[in-house]
Amino acid sequence: MSLEERVRQLAAEVCPVDPAAGEAAQRRSDRQVKPPGSLGQLEAIAARLAAIAGACPSPVPAAPAVVVAAGDHGVHTRGVTPWPQEITARMVEQFCTGGAAVNAIADTVGARVAVLDVGVAGDVAGHPRLRRARVRAGTADLTAGPAMTREEAARALLAGAGLAEELVGSGVDLLVPGDMGIANTTASACLIGVLTDSPAAAVTGRGTGIDDAMLARKTDVVAAALARHRMITGVAGEGPGGATAGDSGDVTRGDPGDDALGTLADVGGLEHAALVGVVLSAAADRVPVVLDGLASVAAGVVAMALCPPVRGYLIAGHRSPEPGATVALEHLGLAPLLDLGLRVGEGTGGLLAVPLVTAAARLLAEMAALDDLDVARHSSGDPPAPSARADVCR
Amino acid sequence: MSLEERVRQLAAEVCPVDPAAGEAAQRRSDRQVKPPGSLGQLEAIAARLAAIAGACPSPVPAAPAVVVAAGDHGVHTRGVTPWPQEITARMVEQFCTGGAAVNAIADTVGARVAVLDVGVAGDVAGHPRLRRARVRAGTADLTAGPAMTREEAARALLAGAGLAEELVGSGVDLLVPGDMGIANTTASACLIGVLTDSPAAAVTGRGTGIDDAMLARKTDVVAAALARHRMITGVAGEGPGGATAGDSGDVTRGDPGDDALGTLADVGGLEHAALVGVVLSAAADRVPVVLDGLASVAAGVVAMALCPPVRGYLIAGHRSPEPGATVALEHLGLAPLLDLGLRVGEGTGGLLAVPLVTAAARLLAEMAALDDLDVARHSSGDPPAPSARADVCR
Repeated sequence: MSLEERVRQLAAEVCPVDPAAGEAAQRRSDRQVKPPGSLGQLEAIAARLAAIAGACPSPVPAAPAVVVAAGDHGVHTRGVTPWPQEITARMVEQFCTGGAAVNAIADTVGARVAVLDVGVAGDVAGHPRLRRARVRAGTADLTAGPAMTREEAARALLAGAGLAEELVGSGVDLLVPGDMGIANTTASACLIGVLTDSPAAAVTGRGTGIDDAMLARKTDVVAAALARHRMITGVAGEGPGGATAGDSGDVTRGDPGDDALGTLADVGGLEHAALVGVVLSAAADRVPVVLDGLASVAAGVVAMALCPPVRGYLIAGHRSPEPGATVALEHLGLAPLLDLGLRVGEGTGGLLAVPLVTAAARLLAEMAALDDLDVARHSSGDPPAPSARADVCR
Repeated sequence: MSLEERVRQLAAEVCPVDPAAGEAAQRRSDRQVKPPGSLGQLEAIAARLAAIAGACPSPVPAAPAVVVAAGDHGVHTRGVTPWPQEITARMVEQFCTGGAAVNAIADTVGARVAVLDVGVAGDVAGHPRLRRARVRAGTADLTAGPAMTREEAARALLAGAGLAEELVGSGVDLLVPGDMGIANTTASACLIGVLTDSPAAAVTGRGTGIDDAMLARKTDVVAAALARHRMITGVAGEGPGGATAGDSGDVTRGDPGDDALGTLADVGGLEHAALVGVVLSAAADRVPVVLDGLASVAAGVVAMALCPPVRGYLIAGHRSPEPGATVALEHLGLAPLLDLGLRVGEGTGGLLAVPLVTAAARLLAEMAALDDLDVARHSSGDPPAPSARADVCR
């Protein structure tokens, strides 16, 4: 079986979530000892977990893990970031030895950290925590040609899927896709631009904090990649209504999911491909996925294009300040749990949302029902008005 | 020593936080292995924890607790909520036996739950978790006269302070003030209205989910209380610029902190008084306070009026949908960590923010420094441009 066939097979293993279990969760929540709806977004999360598990209440997630996939980017040479490329390799070592942001947060929320090198350009010191599955030493410059071949994208995707499958096999019951790759906000913007049919200016941001001149250059780079992709795929089109003068050349349209793998290979990163695999594999195993920031939601968009039922398994952990992240979240129809101004990647924002997801599941599983309050038996003095009782005890 | 003198003594024990430690925290964060500022709000939280501890990095909070203070409200008879008053007593029992929202969330984040009856109207079953310190069986109707006497307010405040002191003495290092009291969003609105000089319409909301007619009645009740308070305190005045026609009668002004205890007694609740004591006692012990929703932020506003240095010890856990909560948070100058549409009270939103606070402290304490990456030693090929190195390694 070819690598591409294996990707298609993986996507075919994803079953739609169970809407009846989600509806049962909302009914159960409405009978618990609180005003109906008063747990806000947590009620929607509990319903989603029930739909994923096909059970109400769902099991309470107890063994979360983050997969930090790392890769480098040929587009780095275009001057889209002030950071040297070798930082990718050095940060991968930090993830292994425990000195990065993701480690401190994972320890806080009780999550395992798995590190996956699918495409770092430089040498990385060996470590038991590091999974070496380097497909190539960084992508090619996506403004000049495809970032990688379809086969390379498929190989990186399957590496991510394989690691996720192993983690789930060892007991992990919630996955956070995390990323590391200097310049990967550029590739993320390209993926989101193509798959949501958005102009470069709508999806390109300051990443780790670039200045106006570099942002203008980065936006031009994304626009050039989108234009090149459109030429290759032969899809003509203009941007949506929001496109402004000057944007007409940087918009692509179409690529309606039937060649999401081609899009991934053309303008994506190796770590994006791996995270698409993590998402697909988790969904195939009915494991919830808590998305992190820009690269993570870009991977979510690619995964949904490959396999629309994947959407039911996704929870948005946080809102990255990158404009492309909000475009992607809207495309996915997801409301993020956190909005803290984080722009680290690594899975940090997804991990920080894990206790909220866990709490949502516990609330649905553990809270008493209003009927259990037994207000009537304890009641002294005037009984509540019938309308009030109806509100309280339904 | 009179009860009021004991309250003043407690307030006098609160030392200002240490701004130098907070600044050292920001400098430390700026040298860690991430783009400067990329941990967003968590960097500000880490700085606040350092300022509270007077040490950089601060200790990592490891033993959080929520104090759920409960009381009933005479204003319940005015038809401000559809819920019968006896729900307060029944929910207190749930907090003890573990069936409420606060219990599921506390278990998720590893927090202790302490339950304090300072003013429930009905019988409450005994339980080891329940601290009985009932000052009176609910307040009087605050539209008709003072909700309680100054001495009663002081007594409830000191009960909360005493419980907080015990908890800290037994190892608790982070406190969340939580509340239970049917109709207490009305008293909360009154406290915030008086102490922030806001009109009734700006601070009154739907609480647990009331309809338009009840909201109009509730707003009238709050306006009447604010007007009565203004008459008693002899403070004349109009609302701020935002006041609209028809609001002129429901605005109070002044009461500039020199009689915050009087305000608390006049329009507050017994559980509010207890939570003010929790906040003051925590601050006196240099323990951070993570505020919850409307009643909790109202208590924060009263505590700051009694003792301005208290503000440095406060962290806003979440943004209640109640308009008065946003008015209070702005008055306190606090940006909430969560905005999930929660309207439960009980400390739920504060507890959900605890892992974020813990993560902020761990990140500052545990992350490696950029210098540790040792980019130069590993570097192969072209060295990064000097400007990039300056960004990375400062």
